[in-house]
Order: sequence, then C-alpha cells, then structure tokens
Amino acid sequence: MKKYQHLAQQMAEQIAHGVWLPGDKLPSLREQVLNSGMSFMTVSHAYQLLESQGRIIARPQSGYYVAPRPATQRPATAPAQVMRDEAVDINTYIFEVLQASRDASVLPFASAFPDPRLFPLPQLNRSLAQVSKTATAMSVIENLPPGNAGLRHAIARRYALQGMTISPDEIVITAGALEALNLSLQAVTEPGDWVIVENPCFYGALQALERLKLKALSVATDVNEGIDLDALAQALQNYPVKACWLMTNSQNPLGFTLTAEKKAQLVALLTAHNVTLIEDDVYSELYFGRDKPLPAKAWDRNDMTLHCSSFSKCLVPGFRIGWVAAGKHARRIQHLQLMSTLSTSSPMQLALVDYLSSRRYDAHLRRLRRQLAERKQLAWQSLQRHLPPEVEIHHNNSGYFLWLELPAGVDAGVLSSLALEHQISIAPGKMFSTTDNWASFFRFNTAWGWGEREDNAVKMLGKLIRQLLN
Amino acid sequence: MKKYQHLAQQMAEQIAHGVWLPGDKLPSLREQVLNSGMSFMTVSHAYQLLESQGRIIARPQSGYYVAPRPATQRPATAPAQVMRDEAVDINTYIFEVLQASRDASVLPFASAFPDPRLFPLPQLNRSLAQVSKTATAMSVIENLPPGNAGLRHAIARRYALQGMTISPDEIVITAGALEALNLSLQAVTEPGDWVIVENPCFYGALQALERLKLKALSVATDVNEGIDLDALAQALQNYPVKACWLMTNSQNPLGFTLTAEKKAQLVALLTAHNVTLIEDDVYSELYFGRDKPLPAKAWDRNDMTLHCSSFSKCLVPGFRIGWVAAGKHARRIQHLQLMSTLSTSSPMQLALVDYLSSRRYDAHLRRLRRQLAERKQLAWQSLQRHLPPEVEIHHNNSGYFLWLELPAGVDAGVLSSLALEHQISIAPGKMFSTTDNWASFFRFNTAWGWGEREDNAVKMLGKLIRQLLN
Repeated sequence: MKKYQHLAQQMAEQIAHGVWLPGDKLPSLREQVLNSGMSFMTVSHAYQLLESQGRIIARPQSGYYVAPRPATQRPATAPAQVMRDEAVDINTYIFEVLQASRDASVLPFASAFPDPRLFPLPQLNRSLAQVSKTATAMSVIENLPPGNAGLRHAIARRYALQGMTISPDEIVITAGALEALNLSLQAVTEPGDWVIVENPCFYGALQALERLKLKALSVATDVNEGIDLDALAQALQNYPVKACWLMTNSQNPLGFTLTAEKKAQLVALLTAHNVTLIEDDVYSELYFGRDKPLPAKAWDRNDMTLHCSSFSKCLVPGFRIGWVAAGKHARRIQHLQLMSTLSTSSPMQLALVDYLSSRRYDAHLRRLRRQLAERKQLAWQSLQRHLPPEVEIHHNNSGYFLWLELPAGVDAGVLSSLALEHQISIAPGKMFSTTDNWASFFRFNTAWGWGEREDNAVKMLGKLIRQLLN
Repeated sequence: MKKYQHLAQQMAEQIAHGVWLPGDKLPSLREQVLNSGMSFMTVSHAYQLLESQGRIIARPQSGYYVAPRPATQRPATAPAQVMRDEAVDINTYIFEVLQASRDASVLPFASAFPDPRLFPLPQLNRSLAQVSKTATAMSVIENLPPGNAGLRHAIARRYALQGMTISPDEIVITAGALEALNLSLQAVTEPGDWVIVENPCFYGALQALERLKLKALSVATDVNEGIDLDALAQALQNYPVKACWLMTNSQNPLGFTLTAEKKAQLVALLTAHNVTLIEDDVYSELYFGRDKPLPAKAWDRNDMTLHCSSFSKCLVPGFRIGWVAAGKHARRIQHLQLMSTLSTSSPMQLALVDYLSSRRYDAHLRRLRRQLAERKQLAWQSLQRHLPPEVEIHHNNSGYFLWLELPAGVDAGVLSSLALEHQISIAPGKMFSTTDNWASFFRFNTAWGWGEREDNAVKMLGKLIRQLLN
C-alpha cells in the first residue's frame, strides 16, 4: 500500500469511529503535512482519494469536510448494552439506573440529584466570570490539599453559625462529598476491617466498602426512627468494628432525620467502643423545619467524627466541591488525596469563595427549601391519588426523597424495568442494600417539579403496579 | 453558666481557633438570632460581654468586628510539624517535599509542575468567561462519566492528527492524569497482584501501588536508554505480572524518551505475556524535536494499553482535567470513577472545550516548548558552571527535568535539607524508588525561569555539595 493510500485508510477509519463526524471540518492539507511529517503531495493525494470515495467533500476557499452519511449506511441503533459483571453486580445495576437518568427523555424519579433548575445559575455564573477576571497563574499552587484557605474559612464560619467550633485547618476540600467519604473511610480502615452501615443505606457506602475490600455489617434502620441503637450496640459488642458510616439528617434513601437525643446516644455508643463515625451530611441544608438540624459531630467531644458534606445537593453539583471536617485525621486525608486526585480544581474553589461571600447563599437556600417542600407535597398528593391503596408511601419532612413500599410480592426491580419502557425511572430498593429486604421498595425523587407529565407518569406507575398485583 | 455567657464563650473559642480572624465582620445580631434560635436579648448580651472583654469591637452603622490581636497575645510561630508515619514513610516524605514547594519564598527546583506563568492565562480566562455566559442548568448531568462529549471528541482528534484512531467512546475524562492512572491500575488488578514499575519512576506510581495493596517489581531503567528490556523479560517470565506502569516520553524523573523501535519492542513483549500497559504520557506535548513522539499505544494492535494524559503539564494544572484512552476497559473505569469521585467538574470541561476549539492551543504549545528548551539550556549552563565537576548532570532533550548525580557518598536527602534552610528545594532520588539505589541523585526542575536569584541558588547548591564532599 502506498503512503497516501495508508493515510486515506487511516482517516476513513477515524471517520468510521466517530473521531470526525459528518459535517466536521478536517485538518487542512498544511496542518496534516505538519502533523504527519508526510509530503504535501502524499497528503493531497490522500484527500483526493477520500473525496473520490465520497467520504469527504472539498469546499472552495474553506477546506475539506466529512461527507454526510448516506441514510442506507447508517448503522441500526444498537440496543443499550447491558453487561453484567458478576463481581460488581450491584455496581453495574446502580450504574445502569444512573445512566438511564441521564437520558433527557426519561423522567428522573430515580435521580439522586435535585432539578438543577432550582440552583442560582446566574449568580454562580457571575462568580465564574469574577474568577475569570481575577485568577492568577499562582492560584493553582495555593490550592493543593487541604484546598483553598478562603473556602475552608467560609465553611468553618457556617459551622460557627450553628454553634460548632471547627478550625479551618481540620477541613479538607474534596471532589464532592463522595471523595470526602471515600478518603475518610480509607483513612481509618485497612482491607478486611468491619464497617457498620445502615440497612438500607446510600449505595455509595456499599460501593466504597467493596472498592476498599472492607466487610459490611448492615444494621437495621427504620424509616421513621433511623438506626436501631440496640442492634448497633450488639454489632459493636460482637465484632471488632473500625468505623460506622451513616447519615443523620434526611437519610438517603429513607428520608428520616435523627432526633437530637438519638444523635447524642449514637455518639456516646460509638465513642464507648472507640469506633470512628463517618457522617454523611450532604442534605443538611434541605430541612423543612425552622432550624437547621445539627450533625452528630456537634455532640462529639473526643474527635471521633469525620463530618462530610458538599455543595452538590443544595447549590451546584457540577462544580464537584465537597469537604470533610476531619479533626485529627485531616493530615492523613490530605496525603490520601495527594495520591489519588491531587486536589480539586482551583477555579471552582475560587468561584465558590466569591459566591459564598457575596451572592446571598442563605436567601437561595431559603427559597430552595420552600420549593422542595412544595414539590414534595405535590408529588405526595399525586402518588396518593394514583397508586393503589396497597402501596405505602412513607412521608418525611426534609429533602426530596420519598420511600415507597409495594405490596408484598411485587418486585420494585420489575416495576423499574417496566417503567423505563415508558420513559419513567425509579430507584429500586436493592440499590441500597446487600440484603434482600428491600425488593418491594423504591426511592422516589420529588425535586423535579410537578406538572401534567409527572402526574401522568405516576398514573402509569399505578397502572403498572396494578398489572403486577394481578 | 447563663445562655449569653455560653454563646460568648463559644464565639471566643471560634475566634481563638481562627474561624473568625482579627478584622472580620461578625454575623449581625439578627443573623445570630436566626441561626442560634436564641432571643435578641441573649445574643445582644453575649456581644456586649465580648466587647467588654476587648475581643470584638462595635462600629456604628456597620456591625461587630473581631478586635485586632494585641502583639503580646500572638502565639509564637510553631515549627512546621513533621509527623512520620512509618507505614506511609515514602508518602510522608513526598508530602513534605511537595508542601515545601508551596511556599512562595522557596525556589521550586523540587516542583513537579512547570512555572504556571508559562500558561496562557488570558485565553483560559476568556474560556472561563465564555462558560459563565453559556453554562446551562443541565450541563452538569451531561458530564457524568465518561465526561463531556465535546471534550472527548477534541481529544480523539488530537490522537487522529498523530495518525492514531481512538474513538471518543473509549476516552474517560478524569481529575488529572493522576486519577486516570489510579483508576486504570485499579481496573486491571486485585490487591496482592504484581505490577511492574520503572526504577526510578514517578512517585505517584509507588503511592498508587501502596494504596491499592499491590506488589511492585522495580525494573532497572537507564537515564538514556529507558527500561532494560532484558530485565523486563525476566521479570515477566518469573512473576505472574498483571500490569506494567511506565512513561515512554520524557520520563519522570530521568527525562529520556524511548525510541520508536524500543516502544514497539516493549508493546510486543508485554502483549506476548498478556500484561496490560498503563502508559503515563503527561509530558507528551513537551518534546523539543520537530515531531511529537508517538506513545507506545500507537504500536498496540491488541487493546492492551491504557493511555493516560492530561492538560496539567502543558496548559493548565488548576483545572484538574486529564483522561485515559482505555479501550475495552473504558466501561469498568467509568464504574470506578462513579464510585470514588463521581465525575470531574463540568465548568472546567466546558472551558477546555471552548479553549481547544478557539484559542490556538497549538500556537501556545509551540511557544511553551521553545521557552522550556531555553530555560533548560540556561539552567544546564548554570549547573555546569557552579556545581563541582564531580557532579554528573544528565542532559536530555524534552520536558523540564534534569537528573543529577552527586559523587558517591553524598546524600541528596541531606543536601535537600540543607538547601531548604536557604529557601532552595530539590527532589531527592529516594522519592522515586522503593530501593536504595538513588540516595545520591536528585531531580531538578528547570521550568521556573532563570535569573540572578536562580543562579545564586545554584551557587549555594555548589557550596553545600562541596561542604558535604569534605
């Protein structure tokens, strides 16, 4: 094969693989010569060959473009690939559910995120624009772990307003709460250690345990009362537990918030057994009552709690900024971060510093809470109206999840598959546990607004459930 | 203690912990009432008490501020805390060296980064500003793993210009190359597996192996020729190796670039043993010759190579954007990312898409390469002039590192400690290996410009080496 034929074949392959799409401008002859090191004649011949094959078209005074793909050549749409890797079965399942909620045509009742239209985009964009005016070359170097000092300061002050004294020095900025939680777990465990989680719990906890080769003790957790302290005490007595990962406010997926009394008891119990608490508090700002509930860390006098949170659920998911108030573990967590992701992005941290100092965060949060409460109420009414009375809808008073219980024998996984065919996603209970207890439960996200389309989707869910009942 | 006294004490503690700094505006009485749930009288009394203690001051029509700290109360500067955790000794050491290079008063010859003033800040800021005008609420959801489609496309096209066909679908966007490398390693290994690394190698490889509980086989690597293929073949024959992590272009810390012939041999050898190559190619754009060297992946016809790179060393470290061209492993890597950091930040990806499409990236790279070559030449001349002739300076023709060899018996770690007292940092050889082979070597960053201060620092290094020789 001659050189020009080889180049033409290579470019044809690239077009076939979607590197260059129909309508794309191709590199000019000159660029191609510079990049390939081939002669102008060779490159020119290759382009002429591709043109004669109808793969590219020349536009005078403009250059070469990828030809539109003839309709007959278009590959049939392949069915969504479902690869089941037995070893990571739950992860694959979670991945599929999350991927489905990316499709804009699917109603995202399965989503873990609130409707991003609830977030103050114009103000956030003003903060980004501000960073684009003031960022310096050196700001990157000032943002290695533990992260931007101004941002850690701003977070410490929000703790202070709740009456908690957290020094900026014990805060580490992370890629969302998820990295904070993962690093925290890694900081206090070794592979093979026992860790307590709730049952059911945030699936990220199960994934993290699996990833770090830890052993899970799932402790019974009630939809209203939260974790069973007697069962917890028993687990602590019978196993050499290293850490306990749980949510105290607006728990995912159940929705409860522990009472102050129970938080105090929880901390006392864990402290008595010298077990570290990894507290996932990502929904802390999404309370509906008058006062922001305290985290369990507020009762901790022995530096036994790593408190993890983020801006992803209440201000801006896309920035990927979270943190951990890590106390004595702060330094170890900085090391672990330096080894795995180095640091979070510097413009994102700077934009948040700007936003928090001047863009009325608290006013946004008040509006957000009001909107979430309204949407939850509307969703609840619709579910009450359209689902069969055998379905139990567990209400709660914060955040944007409802926990639904189908009649015994009706599998939420099956309902989820059927619903997806109608462009409706829900989050089946089996995403949230390694046990089989939750086959007939699902989590329902109420944060995406409520209109006719949502109401009709709930009607369809009702219809599908009735079919499964018969 | 009365309520107001309790609040005053709490705020005094917060001031002592640096949550509120001298000169900071404190929350207004009204805000404090809203946040604490206490009465206006209680809050007001607490502020008055703090004022009477001289801790805060009231400014009429403005509010309350933290009082300036009297000189006598200022705590003495504590010496930098050096905690040695035996289990992560190399990490602690690396951490200390990297932390030292954050101090703006220290000459960063130890740094792994080039001088950020070499990067096109105005253009990057224009791209950020562009994002701030066009970002939509939904852009966050479109940027879950594998990352922004436009960015993956732009990266695929840069491969195409080198004659490589990489589909955008096999590219995963990550938090810098470091996350790409870590996820790649995790995707193809289980704890306890054997992995081949170079000796010496990028310390991030050693840290990743340690973090994932993998066993390292360090293969002899020459400052000019690169990895010893005979030694590699022997290692592959004698151990059940799962992966080989190495750098083919502008290796860190040595600086060599493998020849095309050697890259082909390397790929053939690994393929024959069914061993995955994790190719760290972060310096690929920093060649000084006419043509951009190909990665080893270009010779791989069996989808055995995960090619990792980033924009951190050639365009913008602070964005924390890298990628892996992962072939058949792309899906597994998306799963792992979803479990650990979820995704990279959406505005950063969008800003890069804008930059790559309209801000003359290649013109920047040409200028950057020219500047780095000039600076390396100046640094080399200065080192030649001022260091004792017993010091061997290994030259190379790309990137911004030089590898220096002290006379036998002179410890680079000792030199590093002495140099730090003179605000000069270097990167001792022991950062780059688990063996003791490199005690008298160090890596020297030449990318930070060259003037009188740098020349004097090299003079000081020469003086310190002469002292150690006597």
